[in-house]
Amino acid sequence: MVKRIAIIGSGNWGSAIARIIGQTTSQHKDTFDSHVKMWVYEEIVNGEKLSEVINQRHENVKYLPGKKIPENVVAVTDLVETCKDADFLIFVVPHQFVAGLCKQLKGNIKSDAQGISMIKGLALNTGAKSGINLITDEIKSILDIKCSVLMGANLAHEVAEDQFCEATIGYNGTNPEEEVILKKLFHTDFFRISVVKDANTVELCGALKNVVAVAAGISDGLGYGDNTKAAIIRLGLMEITKFAERFYPPSNLKTFFQSCGVADLVTTCYGGRNRKLGMAFAKSDKDIKTLEKEILHGQSAQGVYTAEELREMLKQNNAEKDFPLFIGVDKVCKKEIKPEDLIEYLKNHPEHD
Amino acid sequence: MVKRIAIIGSGNWGSAIARIIGQTTSQHKDTFDSHVKMWVYEEIVNGEKLSEVINQRHENVKYLPGKKIPENVVAVTDLVETCKDADFLIFVVPHQFVAGLCKQLKGNIKSDAQGISMIKGLALNTGAKSGINLITDEIKSILDIKCSVLMGANLAHEVAEDQFCEATIGYNGTNPEEEVILKKLFHTDFFRISVVKDANTVELCGALKNVVAVAAGISDGLGYGDNTKAAIIRLGLMEITKFAERFYPPSNLKTFFQSCGVADLVTTCYGGRNRKLGMAFAKSDKDIKTLEKEILHGQSAQGVYTAEELREMLKQNNAEKDFPLFIGVDKVCKKEIKPEDLIEYLKNHPEHD
Repeated sequence: MVKRIAIIGSGNWGSAIARIIGQTTSQHKDTFDSHVKMWVYEEIVNGEKLSEVINQRHENVKYLPGKKIPENVVAVTDLVETCKDADFLIFVVPHQFVAGLCKQLKGNIKSDAQGISMIKGLALNTGAKSGINLITDEIKSILDIKCSVLMGANLAHEVAEDQFCEATIGYNGTNPEEEVILKKLFHTDFFRISVVKDANTVELCGALKNVVAVAAGISDGLGYGDNTKAAIIRLGLMEITKFAERFYPPSNLKTFFQSCGVADLVTTCYGGRNRKLGMAFAKSDKDIKTLEKEILHGQSAQGVYTAEELREMLKQNNAEKDFPLFIGVDKVCKKEIKPEDLIEYLKNHPEHD
Repeated sequence: MVKRIAIIGSGNWGSAIARIIGQTTSQHKDTFDSHVKMWVYEEIVNGEKLSEVINQRHENVKYLPGKKIPENVVAVTDLVETCKDADFLIFVVPHQFVAGLCKQLKGNIKSDAQGISMIKGLALNTGAKSGINLITDEIKSILDIKCSVLMGANLAHEVAEDQFCEATIGYNGTNPEEEVILKKLFHTDFFRISVVKDANTVELCGALKNVVAVAAGISDGLGYGDNTKAAIIRLGLMEITKFAERFYPPSNLKTFFQSCGVADLVTTCYGGRNRKLGMAFAKSDKDIKTLEKEILHGQSAQGVYTAEELREMLKQNNAEKDFPLFIGVDKVCKKEIKPEDLIEYLKNHPEHD
């Protein structure tokens, strides 16, 4: 039986990955149904329905203009229709929409369907375990399905240009055949996949790197050079590893050497909007919301909000002193301390003891 | 008995570290003799002897202008005079001078003296074991002393500005007291030291990162974006870990998380002259020597030569296929393949199997 694929989301990253999924499912017809459905949140773009533009001209003119989406990927505006027959549900939407979409899907998908989350972020935990929640845990808990993740140093527009890059799939199952299928679904000549059995760590890397990028931006904004930035990136990486080991054990140190780990962290700390916001914040008296409007055109710098959630969780676990970078970023963003004080905090990092 | 320190070298990095050593030896008078000797290769600068300028005005006007060298660091032009009573010899000279200096010191130092190498590079092995040699092995074999290393993401001029950064000491001894002394000698409020018992790995990181930086520069020169560069940095890191495990076992994966590892690698791949040369090489038809003259003002891009030595060594060990980045950099620099072909090589990296 060939596997059916549904892509939930059709923004910039969703459209870029649709190019890959369209290719791999056509290439491996013995493994996949090459008819792929992609859920599109309907919008009117220049007087036309986005879903119709995608199905007629095979291009997402709003979110990935100029790049062809393979004809075997079909835009569907009904979420349940998109997913009801699918064996694999690829989640690639902003994290705040996940719970709502899953609730719509509940009871309307195959019982042995599996999820793959490409969402870098965290959910707020509303259950007994306070603080943060993994997006995959949110998906699993609502839909009662298995859920893997795909993360890496993957700027969507570069992936859409077929530039060579790598990504990491975190798969916690025990079925070697499934592992092979997952790799086949994403692996192309230029998009190179490694599969590791450490899904939580892969997902945490994708979420926590943004906090480190805010700190790297603060350092840049204060005028510090390469040495200080390198120290911040490294100390941030150590806090991510420590967080994973402590709150989501077991975590394998080797996972941090994958694209999801050090590669994505570095890229985010040298480019990306979290670093940009941190830099602007350190240089001005404006608050975060104002800067998001002014320099991020209203997009949010996820690292700022992740830091807030982390601090709350670390406080409840009496672990604040072990994570001075995570805590410091929240304190700076809330103007409880000055940007310069973050650097002072890091000079006394427990890593140096 | 307080420990006496000799600094062998007084260039940019030597002078920056002299500022730190002057401070720590004054601060810990119970541990160190605060009278520190620094060997200066005598030069005439603006009609004055460099050693006399340093001793009178406490500034290395040629290699670190504008920064005060503490008065307890005294410039000495006689190498044996500098080192004969020292308990710790800090080597901070260009790698090609190490053997010659050690030969001058042979028989003229304390029998229980120890070395600390701050030199990032490799020596050519002239013995039975062909290929490369660690600088510390060179020092040990000529002087018959123990030798530690200090490496990290440490641009000299930023260290001289007291900007916060980190460094790693690799110490392979078994004496906890010595470990404490080594840390005391370098650790300040802004220059933060971690000591690990994995000196070979620390040293290899400092030498091999330059090869990866040439590859990163080639990618930049070809116009590839952040994703490809991140993949190159990561694959380079994987080759460094594999090289250390295979040729200098045992190597601890945790060491790569230190400043000497991922931090120094990243800094070198985003700045630094190896990356600069790789970028220029990918964009022009000129050969390496011409570009070194034109854009590096005659300085050499160490990564190019390290890649050549590595390739020879890997060939002799029949291990070329496991290190496509190291091998590819040498092939590109010798114009055996085009810069674009390096990227093709990496798309089929054994890491993706």
